[in-house]
Amino acid sequence: MHADYQALGMNAANYAGLSPISFLHRSADIYPGHEAVIYGERRYSWQQTRERCNRMASALTELGVSLGDTVAVLAFNTPEMFESHFSVPMTGSVINTINTRLDAETVGYILDHGQVCVAIIDRQLYPVYKAALEHAKCRPQLVIIDDPAATEQPDVDLPHLNYESLISSGSPEFSWQPPEDEWQAIALNYTSGTTGRPKGVVYHHRGSYLMSMGTVIGWNLPNHPRYLYCVPMFHCNGWGHAWTMAAVTGTVVCMRAFEPGLLFRLVDEHQVSHFGGAPIILNMLANAPEEQQIRFDRSIKVMTAGAPPPAQVLARMTEFGFDVMHVYGLTETYGHILQAAPQEAWEQEDNGRQAELKSRQGVRFPMTEAVIVQDTDTGLQVPADGNSIGEILIRGNTCMKGYLNNPEATAEAFADGWFHSGDLAVVHPDGYIQIKDRSKDLIISGGENISSVEVENTLYKHPAVGEAAVVAMPDDTWGEVPCAFVELKDAESVTEAELIDFCSTHMARFKRPKRVIFGPLPKTATGKIQKHALRDQLKPAE
Amino acid sequence: MHADYQALGMNAANYAGLSPISFLHRSADIYPGHEAVIYGERRYSWQQTRERCNRMASALTELGVSLGDTVAVLAFNTPEMFESHFSVPMTGSVINTINTRLDAETVGYILDHGQVCVAIIDRQLYPVYKAALEHAKCRPQLVIIDDPAATEQPDVDLPHLNYESLISSGSPEFSWQPPEDEWQAIALNYTSGTTGRPKGVVYHHRGSYLMSMGTVIGWNLPNHPRYLYCVPMFHCNGWGHAWTMAAVTGTVVCMRAFEPGLLFRLVDEHQVSHFGGAPIILNMLANAPEEQQIRFDRSIKVMTAGAPPPAQVLARMTEFGFDVMHVYGLTETYGHILQAAPQEAWEQEDNGRQAELKSRQGVRFPMTEAVIVQDTDTGLQVPADGNSIGEILIRGNTCMKGYLNNPEATAEAFADGWFHSGDLAVVHPDGYIQIKDRSKDLIISGGENISSVEVENTLYKHPAVGEAAVVAMPDDTWGEVPCAFVELKDAESVTEAELIDFCSTHMARFKRPKRVIFGPLPKTATGKIQKHALRDQLKPAE
Repeated sequence: MHADYQALGMNAANYAGLSPISFLHRSADIYPGHEAVIYGERRYSWQQTRERCNRMASALTELGVSLGDTVAVLAFNTPEMFESHFSVPMTGSVINTINTRLDAETVGYILDHGQVCVAIIDRQLYPVYKAALEHAKCRPQLVIIDDPAATEQPDVDLPHLNYESLISSGSPEFSWQPPEDEWQAIALNYTSGTTGRPKGVVYHHRGSYLMSMGTVIGWNLPNHPRYLYCVPMFHCNGWGHAWTMAAVTGTVVCMRAFEPGLLFRLVDEHQVSHFGGAPIILNMLANAPEEQQIRFDRSIKVMTAGAPPPAQVLARMTEFGFDVMHVYGLTETYGHILQAAPQEAWEQEDNGRQAELKSRQGVRFPMTEAVIVQDTDTGLQVPADGNSIGEILIRGNTCMKGYLNNPEATAEAFADGWFHSGDLAVVHPDGYIQIKDRSKDLIISGGENISSVEVENTLYKHPAVGEAAVVAMPDDTWGEVPCAFVELKDAESVTEAELIDFCSTHMARFKRPKRVIFGPLPKTATGKIQKHALRDQLKPAE
Repeated sequence: MHADYQALGMNAANYAGLSPISFLHRSADIYPGHEAVIYGERRYSWQQTRERCNRMASALTELGVSLGDTVAVLAFNTPEMFESHFSVPMTGSVINTINTRLDAETVGYILDHGQVCVAIIDRQLYPVYKAALEHAKCRPQLVIIDDPAATEQPDVDLPHLNYESLISSGSPEFSWQPPEDEWQAIALNYTSGTTGRPKGVVYHHRGSYLMSMGTVIGWNLPNHPRYLYCVPMFHCNGWGHAWTMAAVTGTVVCMRAFEPGLLFRLVDEHQVSHFGGAPIILNMLANAPEEQQIRFDRSIKVMTAGAPPPAQVLARMTEFGFDVMHVYGLTETYGHILQAAPQEAWEQEDNGRQAELKSRQGVRFPMTEAVIVQDTDTGLQVPADGNSIGEILIRGNTCMKGYLNNPEATAEAFADGWFHSGDLAVVHPDGYIQIKDRSKDLIISGGENISSVEVENTLYKHPAVGEAAVVAMPDDTWGEVPCAFVELKDAESVTEAELIDFCSTHMARFKRPKRVIFGPLPKTATGKIQKHALRDQLKPAE
């Protein structure tokens, strides 16, 4: 019988390539008047958003953009950035959002590596783009976004087009069709990479579609959420939420630049129901001046990804009405693939235990096929004992196509048919995964593994600690010992000895840092603490 | 650049075949203790459900069931029926749920046509199965479901296995893998077809996965709904809700046989949040004895598909707390693909107008790629004027693979790259589609089209009318005229002249039925009124 069943093939009626662009068209067809985008005084309905995207896709096509080309966007979270997530793929080309905090040389490298043919640049970022061209061979056609809210308005001395003029010149009748091949590239995202050249991670239409569908279930998203876009859209396409909001016909409130006071105001003013942010964002909200903070009497859903949010920060969020779900993912997995999915039984636990449970990376989203934690020595899965450490390996339709023009790195990442995250974790008896460290951040002291994350979490419990990072410091006796770098909260003080003592009494004594260095922490453009820079600081001291 | 992007291929890490079976495993992994199934005193958690499905898949495999085989299930909405939607496809085979109300000859035809190798039969239905074998060549292995709630417990005189014994004999360690080819068949559903032999509609894993994902958004399903399974699971796999409930980790309350009083009790007792049902079900709820009816002070979401629910019935549902969403679909589209998605603006309308708006078939679900209404003469889309009638054509990943071993019917259904529904509809200015008739049910009277549905809806407005069906009656002057068949509500009475008069004053006079025949209406096994039988009644009268 199998042959009989298989004989029934695909045709135009029963097969369509999956693409998140289809969500835009459904929302515009069914809820044309529903607000899609809010930015300052600007408002666009879903119908207007589609029309703007149609026009821009038509104009880009006129400029020569076509299947498999790369269009770079160097911009903040404005309507133009949101629209580009639709208009660019509608032409068949690939959207390459570039981190706004990168140096000119790296931007130049990216422009060349992705063979960018059109660059859509916020005027405020023109100087870095112009400087980047000095490091690049390619000469993209330049499109300038003019935003009156830009803090600087530098002159543009290269030939260019204006974003709004292009919209006006384009046809509202542009006819988008789903990609014939749903495996077609939709986005190119360069990993920030703490060392070496960034790698170009490629997503496809199918993956971005499934990412949205899975997020709706995993985050329990209702129809018509009001989402504050605080996560930069250049970061894993803002965790895919531009497309997800189109799937559920949400309203996106754009935030050009993050400020804690502004976030509270926007959440209040626009009845925001959902937002996302790195732990540093939550940290800044928790530590914002009292007069800026607002306690809401409704529940606002917050997705956070990155370092596990410290219990104190989570507790503070609860006071604001922010219901935080911790998730885990990488650029290579389109963003979040694990979630600390809340369990009813957790409600019985005290606040401290609840925060602990919620700060784990968790269990898989629906679009994630499998996540295992593998003992790198034996190749077996580690037991679910909350202790045995292994590497997180991932399978699913939201793993990247691969690294652009980098077959070696692609093969290495996908060795043995799994994506290798490089993150070290344990599995708890309830199946929830908790990251203990990046492979290279684990500290091996006298043969014992010390998780730098665990030491950091202990440091965060001290009321004076604002931010903390722990790295391995060479030691003649132990091989390595933990060294802590600490940035104190404003107006707080504590001594090195006090902090080491605090750690000794709040976790296994052998894990305590042997040294504490106070001062501001160096960060990457995406706000990650640059541990390699901290390690470098330690080298002269050897 | 396109070649560079395309060079990044699929591997075990970044590609997995889409399958709704993956939802079972995620729910069992993440919410093992959450209640999956409630039936009488029986309760199964998601972990237990997975274990039972693993065991049954293992036992079926031991029986010889493998890739592309057909396993038939002739059963009511019990846990076994629910489980079979997972255990059968887990073996690689295809689940063929058979309508419990079919006659033995048709069941025999289906068993042979699908080459059924294992038949899972509720003991109460054994007599029809036994009789069916007299019309069939195949001799499936027989598995009997024993349910103490069965109203009859006939002896089984053929060699057979018992469902629970099979579960016990199977291994809980059965290791399911996603299908290598997501286009692999998952289900076989025979259309009830009012004339001729039923056709075997084939679904695939990809389609059922996307059906669930799209339903979550279209029906705005939260996590952990409590779903009363009142729609027979043999009907388009119960609209795919078995799989959808696994996607959102719901709790399924099984209903072996529908009774209005029982539905009210179960909704109350198990805090049911969602259910589905044909309009006849809503009708029976509306007309149930007062003492059985319950008015809930919470909102219960109800999906209904089939004939548009009359305004009076919708109004009554609102009084119960039932928030009805009308949907449209066919066996060939896995069930619902259009929905009367509610609009905020509708809340300003009066109740009658709201009911009218909500009774339309509506706009597309997210998994539906395109639905157009095509003028069958010109081949162009009809204008969105609410008047021009055309045929509904459908495209999307939830259109069937085709009809099993019926290339002619498959080719005809998919002519010109669209699925031809055979339903005639108009498009309203707001884009909502409304069915006017089945092609063959349209009445052409003096060159004017009369929608039999419109005449029926008018009849339903009369307080004495319980059920109504209108068909074309040959007429020497007009070619055809409408003839109404009417079943009155208990204890109500009305004359033919009064009803014709009522119609004349409640719609265009030329559309009024020229004749009204009172009496019970003949129905198909799925409860559809058999219009061809009514037409036959009219023939001798010519």
